[in-house]
Amino acid sequence: MVTYERAVEVADTYMQAMSAQDWAAVMELYAEDAVLEDPVGSEVKIGKLAITDFYFGIGETNITCTRTGTVRFANAEMVFPFQCIMRSEDGAMKIDIIDHFILNGEGLIIQMRAFWGPETAGPYEES
Amino acid sequence: MVTYERAVEVADTYMQAMSAQDWAAVMELYAEDAVLEDPVGSEVKIGKLAITDFYFGIGETNITCTRTGTVRFANAEMVFPFQCIMRSEDGAMKIDIIDHFILNGEGLIIQMRAFWGPETAGPYEES
Repeated sequence: MVTYERAVEVADTYMQAMSAQDWAAVMELYAEDAVLEDPVGSEVKIGKLAITDFYFGIGETNITCTRTGTVRFANAEMVFPFQCIMRSEDGAMKIDIIDHFILNGEGLIIQMRAFWGPETAGPYEES
Repeated sequence: MVTYERAVEVADTYMQAMSAQDWAAVMELYAEDAVLEDPVGSEVKIGKLAITDFYFGIGETNITCTRTGTVRFANAEMVFPFQCIMRSEDGAMKIDIIDHFILNGEGLIIQMRAFWGPETAGPYEES
């Protein structure tokens, strides 16, 4: 039985690993037979190898991900809102995202769907 | 093609109708063949009649729903965080929820899943 504490741990470890561009740490959260759809509506990546390719494809982009609300959890499924700031030489961009993870009995992600689109993305002003 | 503007309209109309306990207005957002799962993991209500029963079952409870973040939208699916405050003679309770709606071509909800649980519910102090 997956606990709420594990769900919060998964969300916050994901935020930290994304912000550190530590793709190996991200992949430790995934089950072998996981599927990923990021953003929702795009081609689904099936299996840990395809998902690893996806994250390593993000490369050296400077990303900071911050959770912006509580982790909602029901029946081993979890969703949480966060903001992702991406910085490059051309300036900074922010995206508002909600991720949906389904966890397996071991507390690993077996399905990941990321909800975001151009409407919740825009330039970010450093404060 | 469902627009982002329609998704925001659906979310905010839902918040207003829930806060007014105007179940007829809530039901205008649903397609005939919609399904509802609230909370995720509970018995799925199939069809507009079963969904109508669900909302009317909430009854006269004093509810205030407020969206707490942007509507995330991708491929006619939408998710948004909100807080629901329920007041009764015994005091007030708040629940943090994220709803997931899938919209049909007419911008009506064909699937609704509500993510919440005891871990994101608790007493609410009037400020």
